[in-house]
Parts: sequence; C-alpha cells; structure tokens
Amino acid sequence: MSKKKKFARESFVSMTELVLPNDTNTLNNLMGGRLMHWMDVVSAIAGQKHCNSIVVTASVDNISFRSPIQLGNVVTLKAKATRAFNSSIEIRIDVEAENIPEGKKVTSNSAYFTFVAVDKKGKPVEVPEVIPETDDEKEYYNGALRRRQLRLILSGRMKPQDANELKSIFDIKN
Amino acid sequence: MSKKKKFARESFVSMTELVLPNDTNTLNNLMGGRLMHWMDVVSAIAGQKHCNSIVVTASVDNISFRSPIQLGNVVTLKAKATRAFNSSIEIRIDVEAENIPEGKKVTSNSAYFTFVAVDKKGKPVEVPEVIPETDDEKEYYNGALRRRQLRLILSGRMKPQDANELKSIFDIKN
Amino acid sequence: MSKKKKFARESFVSMTELVLPNDTNTLNNLMGGRLMHWMDVVSAIAGQKHCNSIVVTASVDNISFRSPIQLGNVVTLKAKATRAFNSSIEIRIDVEAENIPEGKKVTSNSAYFTFVAVDKKGKPVEVPEVIPETDDEKEYYNGALRRRQLRLILSGRMKPQDANELKSIFDIKN
Amino acid sequence: MSKKKKFARESFVSMTELVLPNDTNTLNNLMGGRLMHWMDVVSAIAGQKHCNSIVVTASVDNISFRSPIQLGNVVTLKAKATRAFNSSIEIRIDVEAENIPEGKKVTSNSAYFTFVAVDKKGKPVEVPEVIPETDDEKEYYNGALRRRQLRLILSGRMKPQDANELKSIFDIKN
Amino acid sequence: MSKKKKFARESFVSMTELVLPNDTNTLNNLMGGRLMHWMDVVSAIAGQKHCNSIVVTASVDNISFRSPIQLGNVVTLKAKATRAFNSSIEIRIDVEAENIPEGKKVTSNSAYFTFVAVDKKGKPVEVPEVIPETDDEKEYYNGALRRRQLRLILSGRMKPQDANELKSIFDIKN
Amino acid sequence: MSKKKKFARESFVSMTELVLPNDTNTLNNLMGGRLMHWMDVVSAIAGQKHCNSIVVTASVDNISFRSPIQLGNVVTLKAKATRAFNSSIEIRIDVEAENIPEGKKVTSNSAYFTFVAVDKKGKPVEVPEVIPETDDEKEYYNGALRRRQLRLILSGRMKPQDANELKSIFDIKN
Repeated sequence: MSKKKKFARESFVSMTELVLPNDTNTLNNLMGGRLMHWMDVVSAIAGQKHCNSIVVTASVDNISFRSPIQLGNVVTLKAKATRAFNSSIEIRIDVEAENIPEGKKVTSNSAYFTFVAVDKKGKPVEVPEVIPETDDEKEYYNGALRRRQLRLILSGRMKPQDANELKSIFDIKN
Repeated sequence: MSKKKKFARESFVSMTELVLPNDTNTLNNLMGGRLMHWMDVVSAIAGQKHCNSIVVTASVDNISFRSPIQLGNVVTLKAKATRAFNSSIEIRIDVEAENIPEGKKVTSNSAYFTFVAVDKKGKPVEVPEVIPETDDEKEYYNGALRRRQLRLILSGRMKPQDANELKSIFDIKN
Repeated sequence: MSKKKKFARESFVSMTELVLPNDTNTLNNLMGGRLMHWMDVVSAIAGQKHCNSIVVTASVDNISFRSPIQLGNVVTLKAKATRAFNSSIEIRIDVEAENIPEGKKVTSNSAYFTFVAVDKKGKPVEVPEVIPETDDEKEYYNGALRRRQLRLILSGRMKPQDANELKSIFDIKN
Repeated sequence: MSKKKKFARESFVSMTELVLPNDTNTLNNLMGGRLMHWMDVVSAIAGQKHCNSIVVTASVDNISFRSPIQLGNVVTLKAKATRAFNSSIEIRIDVEAENIPEGKKVTSNSAYFTFVAVDKKGKPVEVPEVIPETDDEKEYYNGALRRRQLRLILSGRMKPQDANELKSIFDIKN
Repeated sequence: MSKKKKFARESFVSMTELVLPNDTNTLNNLMGGRLMHWMDVVSAIAGQKHCNSIVVTASVDNISFRSPIQLGNVVTLKAKATRAFNSSIEIRIDVEAENIPEGKKVTSNSAYFTFVAVDKKGKPVEVPEVIPETDDEKEYYNGALRRRQLRLILSGRMKPQDANELKSIFDIKN
Repeated sequence: MSKKKKFARESFVSMTELVLPNDTNTLNNLMGGRLMHWMDVVSAIAGQKHCNSIVVTASVDNISFRSPIQLGNVVTLKAKATRAFNSSIEIRIDVEAENIPEGKKVTSNSAYFTFVAVDKKGKPVEVPEVIPETDDEKEYYNGALRRRQLRLILSGRMKPQDANELKSIFDIKN
C-alpha cells in the first residue's frame, strides 16, 4: 500500500505579530530570541497541518539575523512544509518586517525548523510525503536532503565522509 | 597598540528557569521556541559581559532538541564566550533540565549564538579577544573558526571551496 | 482634487495563534477577552495597512461567541477593511479555530472593529476610500452605513429617528 | 417552587490595573484589546458571583472608546449584574482611568457583557434573578430587554420586526 | 504652615485577580511570588492615591502564607494607607481568595508595604499625614511606629536598644 | 536512626534576569513586586534542591529595597539553604544588579524566604538538616533561629516573652 501524500501548499500558515516593548532590547529592536519563539510556533502549526498530528521541535538550522526589526513594526511569518523523512518534517519559514505608517518593508529572513510527528503518548508516527508544485517548493524540496545531512553531521549522527549530498556543495569529486 | 583580551570565564553566566504551563505544548513538554528565547537571553548577557557593550543577535547555529523537558522541570542554562572575530563574539550555551523532586537530570543540550557588539547608535564596535584556559574552552575556541566558515557559507557570504577549515571535517586533501 | 482610494484586499491580514494554558478558563476553553485582544491586534494591523498611518481603536460592534475554542486549538484571524468614513475605517474580522491533529474546524465567528487614523501627535487624518471587489466585500461595504448608524445611536451621537439606513432593517416605511 | 433571587449589589466586583508598556500602542496609549480583556475578566467574576457557577462569555455589546488612556494610568473597572435571562446573565462594566500623580481622571467608558452559566461539563444551568435596588440598577435592568433584542437580531436569532422593545427607541407605533 | 492631611479611606484600592495556570506551581496553587507582585501593585496604587505622586517600593514586612490559593480562585486585594513618615507611607494589604462556584472563601492574609514618594526625577517629596477614622485604621496607625522600628533595626539603620516602641512587645521595663 | 544531612552549597542556585519594559514603573526602575517574584522562584528552586521534594512558600522576611534597578540592567539572584526546621527550610537570597555596558554594579540586596516541603498531595514531609561550611553559611545558620522566632511572633504563633533568642538582640538579661 502506498504512503499518503500531501501538497506543500496545504500546510501553509501565515502569522502576524506586532513588536511590543517587552519584545525589544535596549536599542528598541526585536530580540532574536522572541523572533525564534514566533518561528517555532508558526512552523509547528504548519507541521501539524501537514502531519495531522502533534509535532515536537527536533532541530533548528542556522539562522542569520540581518537588519534589525523595530518596536511597532509588524512581523509576518510564513511557514510551509518542504520535505518529509519518515516521522520528521522540515518546515521553511520566511520572515518580513514592515513599518506600515512609513510604508517600508524593513527586513527579510528565512529559517528551517524540523519537527517529529508524534501520537498522544509522544511516540513517533509516519508523516505524509510532501508534493512540491512551484519552483520555490521544488528548490526547497531538493535542498532538504543536503540540509538533513548537515544536521546529522552536526548532531554527531552521521560521519562527514558519508554525506555525499552535502559534499557536492564543496565541489568535490569522490 | 595591542588589542584588549579577556578570559573566557569572565563572561560566564548561569540562568535558571522553571517550566511553567504557558511554556509547554499539548504534551506538557517545553516548546523549542521558548528554550531558544532563554538561550538568546543568557547568551546575550554573556556577550555583554565579554564586550562591555550592548550586543545584538547576529546568528544561531544548528540546534538539536533531544529528550523532552517537562512541565515543572528546572532548566539551567550556562553561557560563556568562546572566540571573538572583529566586532562579533561567539557564545556557547549548555542546557540541563532537572526534575528535582524525582532527583533526575532529564536532558542535555548545547548551542552556539553569535552576537555583534554595538554602541548606543547601533554601530559595530571592536570586541576583546577571548583567552581560553580549560581544555573545554580551548576546544570551543579552536572549533569556532570552522563554525564561522559554515555560518558564512550558509548565509551566502563565503564560497564553499574557500572554507579550508571546514573542509577538513570532510577529510579532504586540497 | 480626488481623494485617494485603495482596494479592500490591499489591507488583508491573516494572524494565527495557538491557544495556550493562560488563554483559557477553568473549562480549558479560550477566554473571550483574549480572543477580543487578538481581534484588536489583527484589525489594527489591517487598519494600518489601509491608512498607512497609526490607528487607534474607536469602537467594537456586538460580538457573539458561539462554540467554545479549546486549549491547543489553532485560531486563525483574518482582517480586511470594509469602508472608510472621513478619518475612520471599519475592519471586518473572521475567526476560525481548528483542532488540527483531529482534523476538525471547531468554530467560526466574525466582528467589526472601527479605528481612527491619526498622525504621530494623535490628531485624526483623512483615510483613503475602500474599493470593494468581491461579492462579500461589496456586501460588507453596503452594510457599513447601517452598522455606523447603530454605533452612533448606541454611543448617543445620533437620534434613532434619524437613522434611516438602520430603520430599514425593521421593515418600516417612513 | 420559586426561582432564586439575588441583589445586583451582591455581584459587585472592582478591579484595578496599572497600564504597563506592553499594554500600549506606539502612541503610548492603552490598546483597546487589552482593555476588553480586562473587561472580560472583571465581568466574568461578577457573573460567577451572581450565578455561583462557572460562566462563559456569550456576547459583548457595542463599545465606544473615547479619550485615550495613557501609560502609567491606573484603570479601575467596576462590574455588576443587571438582569438574568434563563441561563444567561448580563453584566455592566464601568471603566475609569486616572493619572494619579497629576490628580486627574482621564476617561470614562462602559460596556455590557453577557455570560452563560454552566456546570463543570459546560452544560447551561439556570441563573438566579437579579433584584435591582438603586435608580441606576433599575435603569440597567429595564434597558436589558432592549439590549437583548438587539443582540438576538445582530446574531440572526430574532427577526427585527419581532423586536417590540427595541422598536420603541425608534419612536415607532406598531 | 500646617502639613497636608488626608483620610486613610481616601487611599483605598481594591484589586481583583483570577488565578491563571502560569500563576501556579506544580500543585496547582498560586505561587507566593505572584501574590507578592500583586500586593506590590495594589499597594503602590494606594500609595500614589495618598501621596498624589509617583511612589517606589522601599520595604516589605514579614508575610506569612497560610492556606493555599488554587487555580481558578478569585483573589481580592484591598490596600489602604496606615501612616506617613516624612517622605514614606506605610500601606496595609488584606488578601482574600474565593472559590466562587463552590461558594467558599479559601484563605486570608495581610501584609505591610512601605513606599517612598518621589518626584519625576526620583527625589523624595513630603507625604500628607494619614487621619485614621475607624477602629481598624486607628489600630494600624498606632502599630505603624512599632513596625517602623523593626524595619529600621532589620535593615541596620537603628540599634535595637533604641527601639523603645518595639521593646514594649517583649514586655520589658527599661 | 539519624536524620539525613546535606551541605548548604548543594542547594545553591543562580538565576539571571534582564529587566524588560514591563518589569518597570514610570521611572523606568524595576518594580519591587517583580523582584520579589524572581526571589520566590529562585529560592523555591534552592528549596527543591535541598529537600528533593516540592516546596511551597511559607513566609517572607522583611525586605528593604535600596538603590533602584534600571531598565536594561542584568539582575543576578543567588539562593542557598541556611537552616532546616522539621518540614520547613529557610533560604537566603542575594541580589545584584549590573549595568554591564557601563561596567557598574548598581545595587545589592538580600532576603530570607521560608518554604515547607510537601509530597504530591501537599502533606508536609521532613527536611534534611543543613550543614554550613563557610563563615557566611555558619552566620546565616546561627541567625536562623532568631529570624524564626521573629516570624513566629509576627504571625501570632509565639508570645514575644518566650523568644529568648530574639530578646538577645535587644541586649536584655532575663
């Protein structure tokens, strides 16, 4: 019997947050930790939508914080499933911040969070495959294998020399 | 004139948090986003201590979340500077969770956050060098270059083939 | 010189919230006050987007709370401008709650919030007109006049007998 | 057997809140959503006191926000039952804000929230009648019928032409 | 010129709080720290009302926590000025908790907080005298001197042998 | 059979908090109530560590608040058991605040909280004795009896004339 499949877009979630005083540091900029907290919430919901089960955060990939996001800005986070691996699902999050009264978008950012789908006792369950449709979705789908190998190496569960997919980015012939 | 130097231990910060209901998901486990928020706060304080200036989060390295941390657990986060690069400072955070009434430590975790030291107008300022003393501190100091190259590649600011330090983990002769 | 006009859809905002323990009453259901707080935030952002200025809440129309929303549910709030009146803008909010692991939408709800657009000193400024395009948008646009008369009567700023638009819903010939 | 009755004053609750930074918008004024959240809490407690049972928010009547309430102001909310209908109870809330160091009351506001009294399984239970004593209490008691008809019409559960009590405010002979 | 005087009752403040999940420990009882936070807010407001100025917490007297207050309880805190000393004012807080659906008051508690009245630059300003009227107010007024001596001794600003008022409670002839 | 004993240092807990906007009053200084809330959390954790059981706050001794702690300061709270009495344990908390970018420690403070150790049903359980090692620990251990008598008198559970330990501070021969 074939495994269940779902379109990437079916997991799409958009979340909007207003940057309040307690979210900011002494320069009146959004603290990175608060932004990661929002990223976790929005991507967990996208994960739930794809898996139709409870999901728990398994890992977060490197995140770079570029231009500062300011007090009073509106932050929009968009999350969508990229690719499934057995009981885990990778979610991509895109972040935009906007100073609406002044009419300018002030930053952009993206991140990958990985979740494990579990049942009510916390036992992992199988996850539907992701079907990418748009060019972006296909690109994220294809890159997922490389990001996964990097995660496995960084958490000590794969030897670097076995990461064939990842090696390719170093332009190396085996 | 020689640059200022400080010992890694001078930046040490320990933070303790109690897992409250609003920090947990429907399985009564600490949400990953909340833990990252705490990691950001404790490492920002360690960064401030090392740099004696305001610091802003520049990036977060891959984080793996292992065993779940439960409602009522006490979470201890320890942060310490590992190595400085011009106006940025890398901080390592070690996390332990404990169910104290039952006397068992329930998990362990670690992460690297990088901060940029800035003045009151948000302009980057130079950061003192880190002097590692213990074996752990020396290991974190030495690994910092490799982690930095990975960050630069992942954020598109370095070409993979130039990351000599990083290549070495793939066991590759140039 | 003609007044500025914007499409209703240009103000669209979608916000997603996870119902956490502190948002619930002793029956583990979302408290009405928390939901209204979210409604206010999402509609203020929609108002900002339409007016490209700061907006302050001027009034809230009657809201009925139907089926309870439960702990762990995902609440999606969608807001869009319906019609402008001088310096005020009416926003419609539609609320859906979903128990994602069990795959069922658990409730639906709607509300109208009115905001005044102000400059940085809090002085009211003129608001662009709203251009409705879809059938729903046109229906909300047309109903706005009636809702406005009701608001004015209820706040004592219009005599009931002058509310011609509103009277029509009582099927009365003048 | 006659139904239980209680005096309006037995349900009286007074709540005081200090406006903190996170309660305010970019103009340093209290956000409408936060005020509604407080209104919901204080009126739910008044409802509990009258009904001696759990109560859940059923509806909120039109609210007008007048003069802005500022950061650091002290907000006093007073709630009292006005009239019962089977398993529901209407509560009136009066709001005052005060800048105490400068010795001036800065605003006034009122609202009506309606609650349904339920048992521990969420099933509606009968509510004691309200006995009004003061002139204000009698006025609120008498107006409750009209407000209820408006609520029923606005939520689509009553036809406008059947709202005899409400029609009277339009000065219409049937 | 004689100093300003105000009645104790003019400073009276009543505050009501609902015990939410995040306010409780693993036994579902209100945490002492949360209760003290509320005590501080309500007594600061009473202090502001008496002094018509900003006030800052100077000290807290011994507090005993008796019967536990539970999740879902309604906590009522009542605060009133007892006596002024130059630029400081002592406030008494009485706490009651109630399980309203079950119709039982579950605990009682009291505390004394002392505040210093300050101007906008934080400089202490003189405080009006308190005029006690009821028997309770007179008792609190008279005991204030003894409590003040204890505070001064415990903070190292008075020698125990000079605390004549306080000695009397030990039944000692000088 | 001899009772269990533990070293004071085994209960040591260090907690670090960043003063955020919502923690401050209109002078931008940390509110006393927030500090007490943190004191309660850190000392409860120290109590848990000493007792290896749940602990509930039983009482708080007099606390004096000296120099103000400001927005953006880093507050470090250190807690350690001082002495046990049957089922209760006294914890000493030392507080330091620091303006790190300006490199100055801005205040110091200390407090004693007492907790009762309980089992999962809330029934008191016996607490291990505390073994003091350093000079400070010995001083805190010795003073605990005197502080306990004061607590008992102030909560009406001991007659002042029976407080022999406490009388000694008034330099009185019996």
